[in-house]
Amino acid sequence: MADVRAVRLAALRSVLAARQVDGMLISSLANIRYLTGFSGSNALLVVGPADSVLLTDFRYQTQVVDEVGDLVPVRVESKSLWNGLWEALPAMVGLERLGFESAHLPHRDFDRLLEHGRRWRWQATLDVIEGLREKKDSGELASIRRAAEIGADAFARTLAGVRVGMTELQLCGLLEHSLRDSGSEAHPFPPIVASGPRTALPHARASSRAIALGDFLLLDFGATHGGYCSDITRTVVVGRSNERQREVYAAVLEANEESRRFVRAGMRGCDADAIARDVLEKAGFGEAFGHGLGHGIGLDVHEAPRLSRVSETPLPSGAVVTIEPGVYLVGWGGVRIEDDIVVQDGEAELLTMIPRELIELL
Amino acid sequence: MADVRAVRLAALRSVLAARQVDGMLISSLANIRYLTGFSGSNALLVVGPADSVLLTDFRYQTQVVDEVGDLVPVRVESKSLWNGLWEALPAMVGLERLGFESAHLPHRDFDRLLEHGRRWRWQATLDVIEGLREKKDSGELASIRRAAEIGADAFARTLAGVRVGMTELQLCGLLEHSLRDSGSEAHPFPPIVASGPRTALPHARASSRAIALGDFLLLDFGATHGGYCSDITRTVVVGRSNERQREVYAAVLEANEESRRFVRAGMRGCDADAIARDVLEKAGFGEAFGHGLGHGIGLDVHEAPRLSRVSETPLPSGAVVTIEPGVYLVGWGGVRIEDDIVVQDGEAELLTMIPRELIELL
Repeated sequence: MADVRAVRLAALRSVLAARQVDGMLISSLANIRYLTGFSGSNALLVVGPADSVLLTDFRYQTQVVDEVGDLVPVRVESKSLWNGLWEALPAMVGLERLGFESAHLPHRDFDRLLEHGRRWRWQATLDVIEGLREKKDSGELASIRRAAEIGADAFARTLAGVRVGMTELQLCGLLEHSLRDSGSEAHPFPPIVASGPRTALPHARASSRAIALGDFLLLDFGATHGGYCSDITRTVVVGRSNERQREVYAAVLEANEESRRFVRAGMRGCDADAIARDVLEKAGFGEAFGHGLGHGIGLDVHEAPRLSRVSETPLPSGAVVTIEPGVYLVGWGGVRIEDDIVVQDGEAELLTMIPRELIELL
Repeated sequence: MADVRAVRLAALRSVLAARQVDGMLISSLANIRYLTGFSGSNALLVVGPADSVLLTDFRYQTQVVDEVGDLVPVRVESKSLWNGLWEALPAMVGLERLGFESAHLPHRDFDRLLEHGRRWRWQATLDVIEGLREKKDSGELASIRRAAEIGADAFARTLAGVRVGMTELQLCGLLEHSLRDSGSEAHPFPPIVASGPRTALPHARASSRAIALGDFLLLDFGATHGGYCSDITRTVVVGRSNERQREVYAAVLEANEESRRFVRAGMRGCDADAIARDVLEKAGFGEAFGHGLGHGIGLDVHEAPRLSRVSETPLPSGAVVTIEPGVYLVGWGGVRIEDDIVVQDGEAELLTMIPRELIELL
């Protein structure tokens, strides 16, 4: 069986040829992991028409061999990766015009290209490898599916531990512990644990607020497996719900369900977003849905494609995206229900198998 | 009492005047937090000679008011912060030549300055606000001291839960849970939990390896309080230690103690590093100490100053730095003992009150 990474490197070379660059300097760690399997925190990769080189530092000398094998030659640098780059580049074959990742190269490093890399012509590029990453292969889908299962398992353990009077930070600790116990390699983002009126803050961090009877409790968290993320939100009520809570919850749930039912490959991101937005506008909550419907997930927890009012790009079959409508009423509270789906030609495949009816923790 | 943030903004304006720029565009979130108190994940700040403006997005509309108050005018953007910037800049007084943060501005955004900001002259800068941040004030020291206490408390709880057969991931979950329970707002970095031969990897992540009797167990973790970090490493033995473990441990401990005793304000980073390196070289482990002695901590877990072979910069009084000598023997294991200290004219103040003798978990 062909190494999937070799297939990806070949796909990249085709795209580069079509853009009339000879090769590319890759500085995004997620893109480097996608192409080579290397998961360290410091690396540069050059892919040329005939050969490639991966540079990292001495901290990763054992790990890089384990992860990359003989896919591409590796240089382990004791000082700056950039010194190594200027030594390695002249030996590479057929490189004259090189792309670089405009979104992932700080100006300081761009300056290095101008200063030490005058011998080559440098072309700013955007979203080249991100484009390849949109459509997931079967191995990637298996990893995300597993990350979603880990998240579901951890959520069930966490709910069982919620107590009135606990702080959001304590519950966040329990959630993180549950995620690790369920097998998550890493937290793709710091979990959001918000209670009561703080659920109206779409990006609340856990605070020292004590959870009270009657509160909405919102948990937004993810798991990681094989480098791939899940991203899940559930909102529950601590104790008995009141009528207003049920009304807002029902509207968000309907927006979630309609979106999951009707999102299709080929649809533009803005049209997907409109499915949920229409439901919430009809329920009188249009203004209270202040963010987009969702985003791609994969090696990054936010990646292409986007499901938002401004995204004109069609969704490809095989993309994995979140469906996360929300309603936020400042001073009162908010509800978000977030699932992960695989976009297909027919109805999407649901990855997050977690109940969606309003849970009352009694 | 003067708002410490107003003092910092005034200090920045003095530095800018000395560098002959009128103002500065700030894109580093840690630098924005230092100057304004805003802790959201999306922001731009412009500081001019007479006025300032902070831009963020609708997700933070409540939080930004709470955190920033009337220190600087705030714009909450519904679309891109950059659109808002091009609207706000022309109204600012006395701005012609503007610095930007070369290490914190991706090339893509630098391109925006060239395209939409042609009306101003842009000057790349490095480490302007990072320089102001090196020396901590009393409020910052109090926060880091508290973050160190939280870390010490969490470490004690975690050690009490170590069991043979537990995976590193499970122990990592327990450590994260303990950090939250002890009051940490966030994990400044994913804790390193490594056991047995994996302790030889200076940047190991927790894995599914089961902890065995006789293993070295290395925990490298931090806590956050008021945005400020601690960074701590301890290495213990699960069960009885053997002679080789005690020998390596004793060498690292001596390097840690000598460094804490002799690091002084005014010393260059490389001279501080040499204190530990000399000890380890004499013990025959010079080659096995493959990283620098330490780094500054504050709003970032790695910041100026650096204590490394290549750092020629003198350490200022009031800097908070890690002291973290280590010995790594591939295939066998490693030891690192990391403390946080306040650099002073006399002997440094120790912030991490955690035992340092070799612990045998029995």
